Amino acid sequence: MDPNISLITLGVEELDRAIRFYRDDLGFPIQDREDDSEVAFFPLEGTWLSLYPRALLAEDATVSDDGTGFSGVTLAHNVSTTDEVDAILEQAERAGGRLVKPAAGTFWGGYSGYFADPDGHLWEVACPDLTAE
Amino acid sequence: MDPNISLITLGVEELDRAIRFYRDDLGFPIQDREDDSEVAFFPLEGTWLSLYPRALLAEDATVSDDGTGFSGVTLAHNVSTTDEVDAILEQAERAGGRLVKPAAGTFWGGYSGYFADPDGHLWEVACPDLTAE
Repeated sequence: MDPNISLITLGVEELDRAIRFYRDDLGFPIQDREDDSEVAFFPLEGTWLSLYPRALLAEDATVSDDGTGFSGVTLAHNVSTTDEVDAILEQAERAGGRLVKPAAGTFWGGYSGYFADPDGHLWEVACPDLTAE
Repeated sequence: MDPNISLITLGVEELDRAIRFYRDDLGFPIQDREDDSEVAFFPLEGTWLSLYPRALLAEDATVSDDGTGFSGVTLAHNVSTTDEVDAILEQAERAGGRLVKPAAGTFWGGYSGYFADPDGHLWEVACPDLTAE
């Protein structure tokens, strides 16, 4: 198995809402799609992101759609400065995300905070150096 | 926000078991770490993977650790041939993963199956062409 994650798929309740959040508000590039397509792909620099209705994702994996609470998965977005961390958390909140953890210094010497996207998927926005403004 | 996922972190119950699965059984490259470190990083070709105790991950995100059932997140590993799909699913199962969905032709013309890692995180292994052996 090559050491590579090709794609991360996030199950979403309302695909249109999730697309607006990632494409329009966060500015992620989206792959051309038909308006009635049930999936959206974002060709990112590393692993691609895709959005897919949660119920269909569970069905595709042949698992129950039931699930509540903490998913046990977080995505991280690393930037170079604390100002960028603050700006991205504000951007996500304005876009309908939820500020889960306001940015602050971390035990490992960096600076980070968390937001949840409209479906509750957790993103950490982090800068490695607490003093890099 | 740059369109980039830097890191995916999977919350795990037993860090040593998870490291054995990804490093020893699947062959993912691991970053040097102290034996008693509470985190493991895998510098993959795209987005990095990291493993971190689930309870500490929830604590870091300031969310409740409670959570059951479907996480709403899947990772995908794309390969070129159906034989590779079969081989990787067998490899994951031998390593203590669980075969969730045996590989089969898909509605979109490819060939894919799912395994769950020892903590239940879902991976789809997929090949785009059902006829590529």
